[in-house]
Amino acid sequence: MAVTIAVDCMGGDHGPEVTVPAVFEFLKHDTDCAAVLVGREDVLRPMLGSAEKEFGERLRLCNASEVVEMHDALAIALRVKKDSSMRVAVNLVKDGEAHAAISAGNTGALMAVSRFVLKTLPGIDRPAIATTMPTAKGYVYVLDLGANVDCQPEHLLQFGIMGAMLVSALEHKDRPSVGLLNIGEEEIKGNEVVKRAAELLRDSGLNFYGNVEGNDIFKGTTDVVVCDGFVGNVVLKASEGLAQLIGNSLKEEFSRNLLTRLGALMALPALKSFKKRFDHRRYNGASLLGLNGIVVKSHGSADALAFFAALERAAEAARQRLPEKIASRMANAMPAAA
Amino acid sequence: MAVTIAVDCMGGDHGPEVTVPAVFEFLKHDTDCAAVLVGREDVLRPMLGSAEKEFGERLRLCNASEVVEMHDALAIALRVKKDSSMRVAVNLVKDGEAHAAISAGNTGALMAVSRFVLKTLPGIDRPAIATTMPTAKGYVYVLDLGANVDCQPEHLLQFGIMGAMLVSALEHKDRPSVGLLNIGEEEIKGNEVVKRAAELLRDSGLNFYGNVEGNDIFKGTTDVVVCDGFVGNVVLKASEGLAQLIGNSLKEEFSRNLLTRLGALMALPALKSFKKRFDHRRYNGASLLGLNGIVVKSHGSADALAFFAALERAAEAARQRLPEKIASRMANAMPAAA
Repeated sequence: MAVTIAVDCMGGDHGPEVTVPAVFEFLKHDTDCAAVLVGREDVLRPMLGSAEKEFGERLRLCNASEVVEMHDALAIALRVKKDSSMRVAVNLVKDGEAHAAISAGNTGALMAVSRFVLKTLPGIDRPAIATTMPTAKGYVYVLDLGANVDCQPEHLLQFGIMGAMLVSALEHKDRPSVGLLNIGEEEIKGNEVVKRAAELLRDSGLNFYGNVEGNDIFKGTTDVVVCDGFVGNVVLKASEGLAQLIGNSLKEEFSRNLLTRLGALMALPALKSFKKRFDHRRYNGASLLGLNGIVVKSHGSADALAFFAALERAAEAARQRLPEKIASRMANAMPAAA
Repeated sequence: MAVTIAVDCMGGDHGPEVTVPAVFEFLKHDTDCAAVLVGREDVLRPMLGSAEKEFGERLRLCNASEVVEMHDALAIALRVKKDSSMRVAVNLVKDGEAHAAISAGNTGALMAVSRFVLKTLPGIDRPAIATTMPTAKGYVYVLDLGANVDCQPEHLLQFGIMGAMLVSALEHKDRPSVGLLNIGEEEIKGNEVVKRAAELLRDSGLNFYGNVEGNDIFKGTTDVVVCDGFVGNVVLKASEGLAQLIGNSLKEEFSRNLLTRLGALMALPALKSFKKRFDHRRYNGASLLGLNGIVVKSHGSADALAFFAALERAAEAARQRLPEKIASRMANAMPAAA
């Protein structure tokens, strides 16, 4: 299937400098894909160069006069800047002109705009944000990462279903295993919401593994880990912080003196390979799930390599018709309750 | 002040093999301290050797016929095994025969037993578990780590007070800074409980920094990070899991081939120094706070070095009369509400 991605070119820390080259790379690589560059035409047009000729009809430009800034309040993004690159990109999905939208802009604004424009799928009360983290076995999908801070058991069940469908689509796994983040493996542990969510997940027909603990995330015990957005956001950010601390400490130790610097030189192949393994750019691209359309959030500080990875994710979700899969699974999950 | 520690010698994965030598080392190092070895006399007596003579009155043995096993239900630890080494050690604190108790046994059982025997301090609704994590600047104290899964704002305030007093006592800091774990720095973010807790902390007279995010833990933004036990437990375990994953990956990369192994050899000084910095044994010893007495929990898998570190913490908390400090601060914190 030919896939068109609407790209908010203005969002993120670097804007078009990063997004435009990444799109070109993406179009080179995924020759069945097309892209709509969304943003200020006066900025984007001069950047096209030979690309217009090279990609022909696969590359379009769509003007949007405004930009949602990182510090803009949700209300501004939602009610004032109606011609923002973010909003216009999502509109293109709604209007069927694109199969997916991608933005490196403010997460909260992107979620609010997407939810307002696209609406949620039948059976989904709240959209969630999912991303991958590296594990001993590969990687794990974790959700929610901050869209929902006060969750009911039913929401956690919906996250489980959406997460499983996401892994099915992106990893082509038949029955991905789903773990529920908790503080003990025994069924009696955990707070009331989590206890009840475990029951719902057990009866859902999903490949429910049961409770998992914090360390299971990085062990890769399950394909999906479900938690409320407060916990997920804290774990994601704490992990980023710890990885950074460890990386910096390693650098410090290796630059301590001539001997350690020589050691670093000798250790370079191993250190490079190690660094690549934990390169967060390879994991870039969080999915906004549960919407009536595909929206991918790139890290704000993404470089072209990272933005490219997020574009790939958006394209694969579109090829796999992820929202339709979630909707159909939701319909099967709770026929009586619906 | 001369300090006596009651040591549950039977708890943990290794029992007396680890705890007894660690106590000997501790008594050698802290010559103003005394210890009571609690456990089965038939096991412990033969291990004393020359130590009885060496430490004289500073080393006592107290028989306890039972052991709380890791898999024992709380009810067993609390109501059945009344002569367990854990229970007897905590009883010694209650009876004034020891200033602190330490155990590497089951955390839940130790908390339940300690709470039952010692009771909570006036003004403290729920005891909490606090431990340290490494940061860019040194380390941070985080609580609660799992004793309380459903917290009210008042509990988070109490954790803040207890954490600040702990840092005052152990680090001799005058007004330690306290951060409230949240998912955004703006005051509007976070769930309802955290929002209200921020207000209480702001009015508490503590050196309240405001909201911190997951990555602030490892940045060392504040001296204390306060969160509910569910979040704290997940973050602690996720961090342990990530650190382990990173350590293993580093090992793997360095043992890949002859070249990388040679690199590792050259990099050994830096790698060793790096490893030491993240050696969790140096951070061993979680404090059970808010009780009418000092109880320290050692990691179950602690070796003698790690158990020694936990003994040092217990001794310092006793020297600083930590429970009295917390009680006095609580009395000042909420004179009207009490």
